[in-house]
Amino acid sequence: MTGQSHSAEDNLLNFIKELFPICRSITGEGSRETLRLISRHIPLEIHEVPTGTKVLDWEIPNEWNIRDAYVKNSAGKRVIDFKEHNLHILNYSVPVNLKMTLEELRPHLYSIPEKPSLIPYRTSYYSENWGFCLSHDHLGTLKEDMYEVLIDSDLKKGSLTYGELLIKGKYEEEVLITTHICHPSLCNDNLSGISVCTFLAKSLLQNKTNYSYRFLFIPGTIGAIAWLARNEENLKRIKYGLVTSLLGIDSVFTYKRSRLSNAKVDRIVEYVLSKQDFPFKVVNFIPYGYDERQFCSPGFNLPVGNLTRVPFGEYPEYHTSADNFELISEKALQDSLNVFSEIIRHFEADEILINQFPKGEPQLGKRGLYDTIGGRNDSKTLQLAFLWILNYSDGEHTLTDISMLSGLDIGLVREAAVMLKGKKLIQ
Amino acid sequence: MTGQSHSAEDNLLNFIKELFPICRSITGEGSRETLRLISRHIPLEIHEVPTGTKVLDWEIPNEWNIRDAYVKNSAGKRVIDFKEHNLHILNYSVPVNLKMTLEELRPHLYSIPEKPSLIPYRTSYYSENWGFCLSHDHLGTLKEDMYEVLIDSDLKKGSLTYGELLIKGKYEEEVLITTHICHPSLCNDNLSGISVCTFLAKSLLQNKTNYSYRFLFIPGTIGAIAWLARNEENLKRIKYGLVTSLLGIDSVFTYKRSRLSNAKVDRIVEYVLSKQDFPFKVVNFIPYGYDERQFCSPGFNLPVGNLTRVPFGEYPEYHTSADNFELISEKALQDSLNVFSEIIRHFEADEILINQFPKGEPQLGKRGLYDTIGGRNDSKTLQLAFLWILNYSDGEHTLTDISMLSGLDIGLVREAAVMLKGKKLIQ
Amino acid sequence: MTGQSHSAEDNLLNFIKELFPICRSITGEGSRETLRLISRHIPLEIHEVPTGTKVLDWEIPNEWNIRDAYVKNSAGKRVIDFKEHNLHILNYSVPVNLKMTLEELRPHLYSIPEKPSLIPYRTSYYSENWGFCLSHDHLGTLKEDMYEVLIDSDLKKGSLTYGELLIKGKYEEEVLITTHICHPSLCNDNLSGISVCTFLAKSLLQNKTNYSYRFLFIPGTIGAIAWLARNEENLKRIKYGLVTSLLGIDSVFTYKRSRLSNAKVDRIVEYVLSKQDFPFKVVNFIPYGYDERQFCSPGFNLPVGNLTRVPFGEYPEYHTSADNFELISEKALQDSLNVFSEIIRHFEADEILINQFPKGEPQLGKRGLYDTIGGRNDSKTLQLAFLWILNYSDGEHTLTDISMLSGLDIGLVREAAVMLKGKKLIQ
Repeated sequence: MTGQSHSAEDNLLNFIKELFPICRSITGEGSRETLRLISRHIPLEIHEVPTGTKVLDWEIPNEWNIRDAYVKNSAGKRVIDFKEHNLHILNYSVPVNLKMTLEELRPHLYSIPEKPSLIPYRTSYYSENWGFCLSHDHLGTLKEDMYEVLIDSDLKKGSLTYGELLIKGKYEEEVLITTHICHPSLCNDNLSGISVCTFLAKSLLQNKTNYSYRFLFIPGTIGAIAWLARNEENLKRIKYGLVTSLLGIDSVFTYKRSRLSNAKVDRIVEYVLSKQDFPFKVVNFIPYGYDERQFCSPGFNLPVGNLTRVPFGEYPEYHTSADNFELISEKALQDSLNVFSEIIRHFEADEILINQFPKGEPQLGKRGLYDTIGGRNDSKTLQLAFLWILNYSDGEHTLTDISMLSGLDIGLVREAAVMLKGKKLIQ
Repeated sequence: MTGQSHSAEDNLLNFIKELFPICRSITGEGSRETLRLISRHIPLEIHEVPTGTKVLDWEIPNEWNIRDAYVKNSAGKRVIDFKEHNLHILNYSVPVNLKMTLEELRPHLYSIPEKPSLIPYRTSYYSENWGFCLSHDHLGTLKEDMYEVLIDSDLKKGSLTYGELLIKGKYEEEVLITTHICHPSLCNDNLSGISVCTFLAKSLLQNKTNYSYRFLFIPGTIGAIAWLARNEENLKRIKYGLVTSLLGIDSVFTYKRSRLSNAKVDRIVEYVLSKQDFPFKVVNFIPYGYDERQFCSPGFNLPVGNLTRVPFGEYPEYHTSADNFELISEKALQDSLNVFSEIIRHFEADEILINQFPKGEPQLGKRGLYDTIGGRNDSKTLQLAFLWILNYSDGEHTLTDISMLSGLDIGLVREAAVMLKGKKLIQ
Repeated sequence: MTGQSHSAEDNLLNFIKELFPICRSITGEGSRETLRLISRHIPLEIHEVPTGTKVLDWEIPNEWNIRDAYVKNSAGKRVIDFKEHNLHILNYSVPVNLKMTLEELRPHLYSIPEKPSLIPYRTSYYSENWGFCLSHDHLGTLKEDMYEVLIDSDLKKGSLTYGELLIKGKYEEEVLITTHICHPSLCNDNLSGISVCTFLAKSLLQNKTNYSYRFLFIPGTIGAIAWLARNEENLKRIKYGLVTSLLGIDSVFTYKRSRLSNAKVDRIVEYVLSKQDFPFKVVNFIPYGYDERQFCSPGFNLPVGNLTRVPFGEYPEYHTSADNFELISEKALQDSLNVFSEIIRHFEADEILINQFPKGEPQLGKRGLYDTIGGRNDSKTLQLAFLWILNYSDGEHTLTDISMLSGLDIGLVREAAVMLKGKKLIQ
């Protein structure tokens, strides 16, 4: 865990290991440090939105920072200690320095009786409060005593921080990929998303793309709302969008459709998933979940879906201290990255070419594109690709559509299209 | 059977017992007496349409009334007797007073060889005729003899009678609910429909509704045609319509779609049925059945479906003397009434509200509508209802649509909508 | 095989026997002789398109004719002999008169190692070449020797020949039925198509039809392209089209949809197939196959599907000497003809009539079209047909649509429509 880029250790999982210890929240130094680490890989633009800024129906809250927090017993022992695990603090807790009985403390303690060994992750962003989270077993060990409660935090004017990267392509139309960055030491939610998005952006930077790619690393909800408020006039450039996270568990892929439900992004992602070897499921949009809630609110209604492995709330370790390195693997992260790359291969080919000889088939043989000996049964897939492209390059179908219609691999279709372009059969 | 309203006996089945003995037809005193009994429960407007009135392609026929009818053998014994069962008469038989042999009588006798113990129900409204209906066993006991045949009926100028009730709601748009009233002593067809519609109207009169509700108690075919002819300019007010009957048997619910096939009434009824515990089936429109034939004729093409339990013709007792009190039950009638009430709950909520903060989610927490402690997995259904309503109150979806999309109970959705209205988040 | 029409032997299979020996190609005397034999049955118009004519992106090639071809060993024995089987020649081989070793000859010999006993069918229309096709077993018997190779063929200016028949109906709108005629001695591909199309046209000539029927007997690809180039302005008349062949094997029917995929022709053919007793499958359009490739190119995009039994390339005898009389049967050909006739019955009824009494049902009883005794359960199918026709003769549905909607036989629907027309209820 050196943070040294481009080492032999420069993989998805190691990047998560670097990011894990940071106590992130929707604002504060944890976010900034996270974005700094991402910036070692990709040239992120960092935005600061000041406390009090109106963003749609919301307002940027005070910035929260925390240095230490504990509950000490009368013997001076820290019985709950933020330094041991940053999930122990109710995220956004106000500063506290009090002595109190266990009875007085109890309303400020959060545990999950059904999962007695796990520390829950809890927040109180928009209502001033303080508290500690601990395992139910742990809670059971606390005795009647006079406790010293200290939370050494600030909650004051500052700003909300998010990172943005625009990779300009041949077209102004954009692919939007967003992930949230507001969760503290949790692996699958949300570090897996941060890591995959970072490496995906890094690979896209290697080559010229057709579409422009916009990556957002934003705090959940308020970050999406702030970004939307500041970029309203440019939203029409978004042609495909994906909100993502939860990419580290080796399990089913889950695609949640955009609110439009049959947008191009929906059709492409579903098609790509159907061609992978991994199990997958597709569910309709519901107005609950991650930031697709904001992108798909009725006033925006953007073509933005949500791609995860097993979805939020549906794995038992979700939002607990068990969302750790035992849960995720490099293989799962790589598989997720590969699926994203494959989806992007299909976005990239989603362009319309026009057959210049739409009446009848153009004679491929005289252009050296067709077998000269006829009568055989085994037509070659490249020749089939020519016929599919010519027939459907009608102004309504893209190469990606043609791949989906024909079942021919997108790579073969693009290769065949290049050859047809070379012969001026399509443009 | 006292006709005393609001007694302990004032249930759906007892109302059918009151109505059962009356010899109804498409015109005549039987209809009027039936409507009088309904009027004890709901303030029905009674319409009389004179014989000879042109209604669309039809004409109101002569009014038919009957006092007595029998076939007497030479010993003076009534071997077929209208007073024993009003199904014994071919409905709309002209007056007869003749002596004849069994051979001469036979063409006027109707029985069902395949159901030898049952009296069939037969009519001859539009072709002057006379006859008797009897069980095939009964027919077999008739011996060669000289019979006296008497039908003490009238078929002369008069009028067709139907009942109508408009319950005015907040909106001018109407829900049309119709049932036929022309069948004599048959329980399931049509008395079950009359009873359920009467009690449904009675309950709707208790509360202010959003939509207006129009109930029609009409003779089959000619009644619907007469009403359509007289109300053509107001048909556009009909937003949802249901033709009903056959509600007394404890069996599958059957919904036959409107000719439009995907009208709102179709989607709502299918959704409500799918949420009930009862088995149900949905069938496409066919131009054969009850009065939906008229409401869904191509020149009107109204959003009118047909809701029954087991449909007409598909139970062995249909249109025979076995359609009696052994076939129907108070429980089945109550279940039917409850399904109608549930459908109406969904009609009532089928109104569009508009999210006043369509860009991003409005901040519910600052309005006291959202948990202040974040990170938990078990979002409350009321909070989910807020998110669903806000996201889909886009000018295109009604609260009923939102209930159907989310699977959240319509009651919860309406309750949540009231709270959001209170906070001026939707209007 | 007398060619005598209307004899007891005048069946589909015997016609194939007449046509079988001819060495057809995309041009030449073989085509002309084939069209002459067809002309004995139907009044075909013969078109000649001169070599060098530009047709879309193509050009009519030189005309090919062949008289003899062989490979003789040094002992003077014909070891490969065109006179034995016309598949032995690589179709369109240029004239050759050479002596060469087996080694020199080998690149000009075509066989199928996986099907060692069969002679393959191979062509080289658009690239000058010569060769012989023979079974792999046969190839194995050839010894080192000095061979005399003779191909007595011409490849020179001439023309491409095709046959066309327009059967004028009541409407200008056309049904296009095409089959290719360019294959030499192969039974299923393409003689079965020629035979069925000939007899289908012959039967249509017997009666006045509603639609006009255009039959094309054309060489594959270049024939379709030539016809399209010469008839571009009339293509809009084509309302339904079918490319066909491969009709002689007693197997599954296969319908390949038009590129439009839900054109009327697609819906009708699929419906008719679903009502037959034969197994069938329906596949989506792909831009590979027979001449639907040209008719469905994006610049034309005509409502033209492809109907065969087991499709091209999917039976092991395809394009080999085993596509002979052991493969096909009169029964399979007749079944194919019958399915085409049934499809045409549905095209013929695909006309819109308008209900003159669209509001409510017109009173059928007073017009003698309805039972006078009501209440029965067993409504007659003729009466049902009246109701279906009246309800859906709304300007949007044809009689064929009504048959498809109701499941009532198209014959009954047409009969009922004639009765309703007689009563001026529809027009």
